Amino acid sequence: MGTLLESIHSPADLKCLNFAQMAELAEEIREFLIQTLSKTGGHLGPNLGVVELTLALHAVFNTPADKLLFDVSHQAYIHKILTGRLDRFDTIRQPGGLNGFMLRTESDHDCYGAGHAGTALSAALGMAVARDLSGGKEHVIAVAGDAAFTNGISFEALNNIAEQTKRMIVVLNDNEWSIDRNVGAIARYFHRVVTNEHYRNFHDSAHRIIERFGGKAAITVAKRAEEAAKGILWPSMLFEEFGLQYFGPIDGHNLPLLVETFKFLKTVDHPVLLHVLTQKGRGYQPALDGQKKFHGLGPYDPETGKTKPNGQVTYAETFANTLVELANKNDRIVAITAAMPNGTGLDLFRPHHPKRYFDVGIAEEHAVVFAAGMATQGYRPVCAIYSTFLQRAFDPIVHDVCLQKLPVVFCMDRAGLSGDDGPTHHGLFDIAYLRGIPEIVLMAPKDEDELADMMKTAFELPGPSAIRYPRGVGTGVARKAEACALPIGKAEVLQDGSDVAILGLGPMVPLAQELAGTLEHDGYSAAVINPRFVKPLDLEMLAQYAQRVAAFVTFEDHAKMGGFGSAVIEALQEMGSGVPVVRIGWPDRFIEHGKVDDLRARHGVSVEEALTQVTPLLVSRKRSALVAG
Amino acid sequence: MGTLLESIHSPADLKCLNFAQMAELAEEIREFLIQTLSKTGGHLGPNLGVVELTLALHAVFNTPADKLLFDVSHQAYIHKILTGRLDRFDTIRQPGGLNGFMLRTESDHDCYGAGHAGTALSAALGMAVARDLSGGKEHVIAVAGDAAFTNGISFEALNNIAEQTKRMIVVLNDNEWSIDRNVGAIARYFHRVVTNEHYRNFHDSAHRIIERFGGKAAITVAKRAEEAAKGILWPSMLFEEFGLQYFGPIDGHNLPLLVETFKFLKTVDHPVLLHVLTQKGRGYQPALDGQKKFHGLGPYDPETGKTKPNGQVTYAETFANTLVELANKNDRIVAITAAMPNGTGLDLFRPHHPKRYFDVGIAEEHAVVFAAGMATQGYRPVCAIYSTFLQRAFDPIVHDVCLQKLPVVFCMDRAGLSGDDGPTHHGLFDIAYLRGIPEIVLMAPKDEDELADMMKTAFELPGPSAIRYPRGVGTGVARKAEACALPIGKAEVLQDGSDVAILGLGPMVPLAQELAGTLEHDGYSAAVINPRFVKPLDLEMLAQYAQRVAAFVTFEDHAKMGGFGSAVIEALQEMGSGVPVVRIGWPDRFIEHGKVDDLRARHGVSVEEALTQVTPLLVSRKRSALVAG
Repeated sequence: MGTLLESIHSPADLKCLNFAQMAELAEEIREFLIQTLSKTGGHLGPNLGVVELTLALHAVFNTPADKLLFDVSHQAYIHKILTGRLDRFDTIRQPGGLNGFMLRTESDHDCYGAGHAGTALSAALGMAVARDLSGGKEHVIAVAGDAAFTNGISFEALNNIAEQTKRMIVVLNDNEWSIDRNVGAIARYFHRVVTNEHYRNFHDSAHRIIERFGGKAAITVAKRAEEAAKGILWPSMLFEEFGLQYFGPIDGHNLPLLVETFKFLKTVDHPVLLHVLTQKGRGYQPALDGQKKFHGLGPYDPETGKTKPNGQVTYAETFANTLVELANKNDRIVAITAAMPNGTGLDLFRPHHPKRYFDVGIAEEHAVVFAAGMATQGYRPVCAIYSTFLQRAFDPIVHDVCLQKLPVVFCMDRAGLSGDDGPTHHGLFDIAYLRGIPEIVLMAPKDEDELADMMKTAFELPGPSAIRYPRGVGTGVARKAEACALPIGKAEVLQDGSDVAILGLGPMVPLAQELAGTLEHDGYSAAVINPRFVKPLDLEMLAQYAQRVAAFVTFEDHAKMGGFGSAVIEALQEMGSGVPVVRIGWPDRFIEHGKVDDLRARHGVSVEEALTQVTPLLVSRKRSALVAG
Repeated sequence: MGTLLESIHSPADLKCLNFAQMAELAEEIREFLIQTLSKTGGHLGPNLGVVELTLALHAVFNTPADKLLFDVSHQAYIHKILTGRLDRFDTIRQPGGLNGFMLRTESDHDCYGAGHAGTALSAALGMAVARDLSGGKEHVIAVAGDAAFTNGISFEALNNIAEQTKRMIVVLNDNEWSIDRNVGAIARYFHRVVTNEHYRNFHDSAHRIIERFGGKAAITVAKRAEEAAKGILWPSMLFEEFGLQYFGPIDGHNLPLLVETFKFLKTVDHPVLLHVLTQKGRGYQPALDGQKKFHGLGPYDPETGKTKPNGQVTYAETFANTLVELANKNDRIVAITAAMPNGTGLDLFRPHHPKRYFDVGIAEEHAVVFAAGMATQGYRPVCAIYSTFLQRAFDPIVHDVCLQKLPVVFCMDRAGLSGDDGPTHHGLFDIAYLRGIPEIVLMAPKDEDELADMMKTAFELPGPSAIRYPRGVGTGVARKAEACALPIGKAEVLQDGSDVAILGLGPMVPLAQELAGTLEHDGYSAAVINPRFVKPLDLEMLAQYAQRVAAFVTFEDHAKMGGFGSAVIEALQEMGSGVPVVRIGWPDRFIEHGKVDDLRARHGVSVEEALTQVTPLLVSRKRSALVAG
């Protein structure tokens, strides 16, 4: 750790530094990030891009009195470092350590938590309006990446800002990337602004001017350059039409310019947007060369940037490979993602069928309605969206897809616990919100091969369907040469038994098998069932076992409340069965970040917990049987 | 019915008419709408505004080959009339009759159904891309009101259109109103365009020019006027930045201009937006004088526009009155709606506390995140959003409000069956999607007085809460002088009993009482319980009755799957009780439009159904008791 960095205990310490020291501090922070994240993993690229920006913000504004928000907030590591969390920074994303995103419970300086894109402007407006009502003086600053402007919530907020407040600062952190390279008209628009000659000239001169005349003059120049360019490009139009005064674009790595600009913006009495150009991964060649990889990653070699290959096929890769196979045979299959081509695996599909690949930006709702539109014309769209982000599209799933019985397939990666990313990224609610929607078929595969079968099944259905599967590597099972469609609503009985029926949903099958083994060791006959379908449930299978067993056990990587186990007890109740059900899943609380196995043990998502609950039920039956015998 | 109108059996018939005949037809349609809707109720104002626009669209394009979408589609009545549904039009919104919105199952000419705003551009883009992939020649036209552009999905779509297709027509139907007058920067922007002098001059001359030179020339003039105005206003900028060529604004009641313009737009080889100015309620003075009332209403006197007063206080009025009382005493209470001030009752709150009232446009997600932002600063926001529209904000409720434990109150009007509006407007899923979210307190009042108590309770909670209550009039119960906070998670036992415990959620209490009466008549002792809380459930009450009764019955105005009854059986299962539960609620299918009582009877949401299911359970217990006795 650098010596300057060691001396920073709060933003106040930063305010004593001159520009030369701040520049040195920036380099120390970069080195510290590269070294620390090489062990913990994390969002290296985005944070390397905002070192100077964050330093300048904290040099000028006074958190926690002033409110500083970061959209998504994966780029708030430097903010964490500068606000008293340097000594714990090596615990980031580690069990019990700092969260990888802003968290209100972690620090007073984290005024707003996030993890999903597009919320910063809305939340900041709420804070600005609250300040206005209370007669406060504090500043509210929302830092949002260019990707945030592909999301509709940002526009809904923009439509309201000028009407609701006179004082709010939006910083557009423009690095041309979301997780993947940004798409759409907004991205092109920003790019055109940035590559305009007027601005380039301005850039070159800005540094000299700021040194000679200080901030105010530089701002005047900025405004003038902007106005000059208007005749050709109207670069500020988009935001000025929304009532925000537009400044920039300025170099996001020029500390004096940033500091002087923020000082000036503090004095402005109307909402403003400052367009800042930053370079994702700045100062670290491997990150500059591998933008997607270094957006967010696990541990790596700090010298080379190399990561260990995980060796096993992921669910995402299986999804992509299967989709290529199916699309080769069916030219109606099209694939849609909302800025997650890498994480969902769709970037592996794209080269095979570039015309049938659509990345619509961080726009989950539009993705689903767009899919519905294609489905009306006989296409078979798959929406590849993480479970937690698909929450955004709940209404279009109900209103556009299921109500119209359109055959859209939702492939939800990261269903279940997401681990290191924490509560904003766990996919623990999808069964609860999808199961109640009429018409949908909801599946969960036990392994990669079954994922392929379920995709084949989904594309043959006349209506909507969803498949939930976990993040990361699969079981390593061999895949069949060709995927087979599964009978709808039929579970797979892996092993028969008569005392207890254990249902392990999707990746929970191994826990079901482990529990069965233990119970068999205790002398019980245990059935192990892979339900495959959350909806429609295999009622015949349930009815059969309800007549024989003393108890059911359900395992699911989902919230217990409203989850798969709940579906099972609803079904048993409807058939008049009183056989008890032990439901194992996540408790009714938000689950922190950490290692999946640790968290499962801590929260009772375990074979042990199932054993504790089911044994008394089996013992009592054995006793009754003995008495009866 | 007019004689011209009678001769129109399909859009083909329309194509034989000259402009004079079309104008006559327009007047016949207006008269027909005014007379017919005076009996059925419906969206009169919006449809009177688009008579000429719809005639022109069908005169130029060829549905169903060409794809014509209406955003929300409450303004598609004329489209229905022109596409073979004239003879059934008097059944609109009536049981078994035409739906009030577009419905794919109703006609081939309805290529896309809707009911929630902001989806038309996305769905149309899906169809345009599908056409491009298939090599089709058809046109895709999305008609969207100015209000649709306060919604984020429209912007997510705009961001994609130019990138994905070269041919798509967006018609901006600009009447300055959503249900209420539009808000925000977009509305101001449109207004500025429209009131600009250059355009006004153009308007005046357009009519003359079109008569002399025909359509192409008019378009040239339109473009020129637009370009001239750019120097001052850049009126087309917003859409042109998104890559759509902008035409207009043109008079939406000038049939020749509309027809010629659409003919020209058919020939354009890039995405276009035509800005059309219409007058909501045109041709009917009561609708022009009462814009909000005539957006959508029940039966009225066609001569005067007068409606019968409903006489009783609505839930929405109680909500508003209570909010005024509570806000009088607590200056931290603020109220937020998403373009529903009238329907939610907030327009009654506004004059009392104008600075604490916020209408953010049709922007449910932003509304909730904005509320979360205010809550972080010590305010107590209430979001008044219908149950079905709150589906839009599911992710912000999880990610911004509940995860951060922020005390936002969600007041959901129209929870339960919405009746005439049909499946897009029923609020049958909110328990299923909200109950699984940690931290939330979820309530349902049995009457208006209890709604006030629950609001009082909600504002005293340290975290998030939601209250669901039905559309329309309450029970007529007298209200207490002052609302009282309720004990959290405690049910109200209305009547004790020992054979069966009947839980009637919210407005279903009368059904519970009726069932109890019938069972008592048959000699059973029935408890009647008003659960008040869906979450947290009153476990103590459930445990007590579980020891005594032979069965529980739950009544809810919500989907059975994942609903309140499901919460009860989860709880009983967790406490090891095997007492059967008869769950009465809506089956797992989308419910059509109709009268609430009819639909309840048809779908088994009834005392009769409960009686059929619960009687055998009680008889078998009586028999056991007799045998044991």
